[in-house]
Amino acid sequence: MTARPTTRSLAPLNEWTALEIAAAVRAGTVTCEAIARACLDRIAEREPRVLAWEYLDPEQVLAQARALDRGGHRGPLAGVPFGVKDIIDTCDMPTAYGSPIYAGHRPRRDAACVALGRKAGGVVMGKTVTTEFAVNYPGKTRHPQDPARTPGGSSSGSAAAVADCMVPLALGTQTTGSTIKPGSFCGVFAYRPTFGAIRCSGVMESAASCDTVTLYGRTVEDIALHRDVLVGTEPAPVAGLSEPPRIGFCRVPQWPRLAPYTQRLLEDAAARLARAGARLQDAALPEDFSEAEETHRQISCREFALNFTREIEHHWNELSEDLRNGKIRIGLECTDKRYRAAQALAARCRLGVEALFGDFDVLLAPAAVGEAPVGTGTGDSTLASPWSLMHVPTMNVPVFKGPNGLPVGAQVIAGHGQDRKLFAAARWIHSALA
Amino acid sequence: MTARPTTRSLAPLNEWTALEIAAAVRAGTVTCEAIARACLDRIAEREPRVLAWEYLDPEQVLAQARALDRGGHRGPLAGVPFGVKDIIDTCDMPTAYGSPIYAGHRPRRDAACVALGRKAGGVVMGKTVTTEFAVNYPGKTRHPQDPARTPGGSSSGSAAAVADCMVPLALGTQTTGSTIKPGSFCGVFAYRPTFGAIRCSGVMESAASCDTVTLYGRTVEDIALHRDVLVGTEPAPVAGLSEPPRIGFCRVPQWPRLAPYTQRLLEDAAARLARAGARLQDAALPEDFSEAEETHRQISCREFALNFTREIEHHWNELSEDLRNGKIRIGLECTDKRYRAAQALAARCRLGVEALFGDFDVLLAPAAVGEAPVGTGTGDSTLASPWSLMHVPTMNVPVFKGPNGLPVGAQVIAGHGQDRKLFAAARWIHSALA
Repeated sequence: MTARPTTRSLAPLNEWTALEIAAAVRAGTVTCEAIARACLDRIAEREPRVLAWEYLDPEQVLAQARALDRGGHRGPLAGVPFGVKDIIDTCDMPTAYGSPIYAGHRPRRDAACVALGRKAGGVVMGKTVTTEFAVNYPGKTRHPQDPARTPGGSSSGSAAAVADCMVPLALGTQTTGSTIKPGSFCGVFAYRPTFGAIRCSGVMESAASCDTVTLYGRTVEDIALHRDVLVGTEPAPVAGLSEPPRIGFCRVPQWPRLAPYTQRLLEDAAARLARAGARLQDAALPEDFSEAEETHRQISCREFALNFTREIEHHWNELSEDLRNGKIRIGLECTDKRYRAAQALAARCRLGVEALFGDFDVLLAPAAVGEAPVGTGTGDSTLASPWSLMHVPTMNVPVFKGPNGLPVGAQVIAGHGQDRKLFAAARWIHSALA
Repeated sequence: MTARPTTRSLAPLNEWTALEIAAAVRAGTVTCEAIARACLDRIAEREPRVLAWEYLDPEQVLAQARALDRGGHRGPLAGVPFGVKDIIDTCDMPTAYGSPIYAGHRPRRDAACVALGRKAGGVVMGKTVTTEFAVNYPGKTRHPQDPARTPGGSSSGSAAAVADCMVPLALGTQTTGSTIKPGSFCGVFAYRPTFGAIRCSGVMESAASCDTVTLYGRTVEDIALHRDVLVGTEPAPVAGLSEPPRIGFCRVPQWPRLAPYTQRLLEDAAARLARAGARLQDAALPEDFSEAEETHRQISCREFALNFTREIEHHWNELSEDLRNGKIRIGLECTDKRYRAAQALAARCRLGVEALFGDFDVLLAPAAVGEAPVGTGTGDSTLASPWSLMHVPTMNVPVFKGPNGLPVGAQVIAGHGQDRKLFAAARWIHSALA
């Protein structure tokens, strides 16, 4: 909480980091309203092309900002606008879960992660576009750098809004690859915390065994700040590393699916990190890990299909064909016996992955197969889903450009509960590859 | 699913088991409407004294029953009325979470456990009384056998309604002792499944690390049936044991808090079970287990306090003094560091408890300190909370009478995922002690 406005504060207000905004608001050098207006102006300019927002009312945003200015709010997120994925409940804005079934639905309560952000002085900018029930069927959002391409999903609007400097922070969720993949496609830091570390109360349950609230930002420090607010602890700066990290390089079982240029970018990055002083070695993933992708699929689809019993029974024709014939079909076909075997495999595999963190501070792995693809699909999530099942904290670090000049990320993974070590290592890796 | 109407079907319809009702409805020997009317008549007679229901609309119940009769429903719960604790969302009945803040609140969706019950042919009888936000501050419900006494809480209405033959089944929840304790006080079977086995979607989140949907019934078989429906598997009969169970007798750290008669009842039961052929030995609980009660308190209070940020910020004066000065204060005082240490202890302790199930099929432990106390408090939950933290399946087996002729239960506990073994052993123990 010692950040001071830097030279970056000469940048347009909508490009300021959350740390810069909160420090300037507390110092009285900028108003919450000025920040909110700058973000609203950016959205007014860019939204017709990016389509990141499911719900946004500028007057409501300005009213929040003015109330904070009047109250002299000095919280850790004072005046910081944040986007909220539209599967996360808000008491004063609709929450439609990406489905026509719930168009206009008004929840009674704020999700815990929204209430904690407001309590810290944050401004809810609006609801960001999600895929249908946070699964595959895409919303309207387009990639900020190329409208022919997807921003990824399911946290499509949150990733695009942060990447496009509409807001400094946004809330997403990840059950499969819904945060790491859009982070890689859009070129922002994207953080999935240790499973269970951030409360999910008020967040649509997809598959509780893997659901997590996630965070987007344009710096590691902003994500760390937002995390501390949501965990309910005093914000602390991201620590520096006393020495370069021990990095385990993961040629994951999905490696052959990567675009050749993604393989080369990662191999090259590993070499550069080693030259920068990292003790980098290939990590031997546990044997079970090759089954983690399918194991995740069985568990998450079965839980989803049970959770959506009401919609399956009463709203079948309002569900997309993609959802009916994908997640729901797989989930209904998965027996309880198979589900329990999958849970047992996941528990075993977690122990095997955890053992790696005796030798390594973090693992380095692909975040996506390559650049954001052209078209309406949201891309391949299977670089992220095994780690979602492992319950370990992971982060997309935006470090590469693909052949079309579009972002490709590297995924950095730490041991269970080692989220702050993840932040330190991700920052080191980002600097070393910059 | 082979149950036939037995001699018990000569009993009044409101006393029938769920298995008897569903079999008779499928056989066409009774209508759903007749069952619903019998339960409604019982409620009309007894509700002024027991006060188990937060919301009940007889016409709405009869409409559900008639629709099932018209449709010829043949599901595993065909025509079975069930109560729903009022922290579990229903799309056609209000859900007030036991708090004046949410009086009249109408959720948009059914919780998964409600939707699955309806899909199986069940009739939602109404919403049962819960304590405030499923914590301590009591609702209006009184003990069915003695209105001067509490039925226990937080699942007060569900336990009382099943005990008083108003419904054969009811949904509850347990984060601390909210199901096992009222089950012991009211003298019904009460089942807390393996953590994570029944989906919590649409259930108010108290503390996700321990929250579970729970079931009440007047027979083990009815609970097994309801569980199979909610787990999404084909109902299967409760298996018999090929030999008497290996039982580990637990003089838990809370043993000195038990009423002397409860200690004697349990000691005597152990001796009788051994005479009936059980291989019964004292179980050596892991050392960490003595900290499980306090560890559970820290984890559950901290998660609750974060989850209820909005209510703390905006509805402070509508929260009970008990809640503000109890769970919320403890939760806000618990640091992230302490919380994480508590989670680490819980994980260690789970491994120690799991190891016991190499030697034992089930553990036998106290369910409550004694009979339901006189007054408005809901009694001591600390016989249940350590097991809630352990994530193992447990059941209250109603086997004893205290000095006032009121029920006292025994708690039977199985290993993680061994819910069907729990059912078999609980039935054996119940028979042996009957």
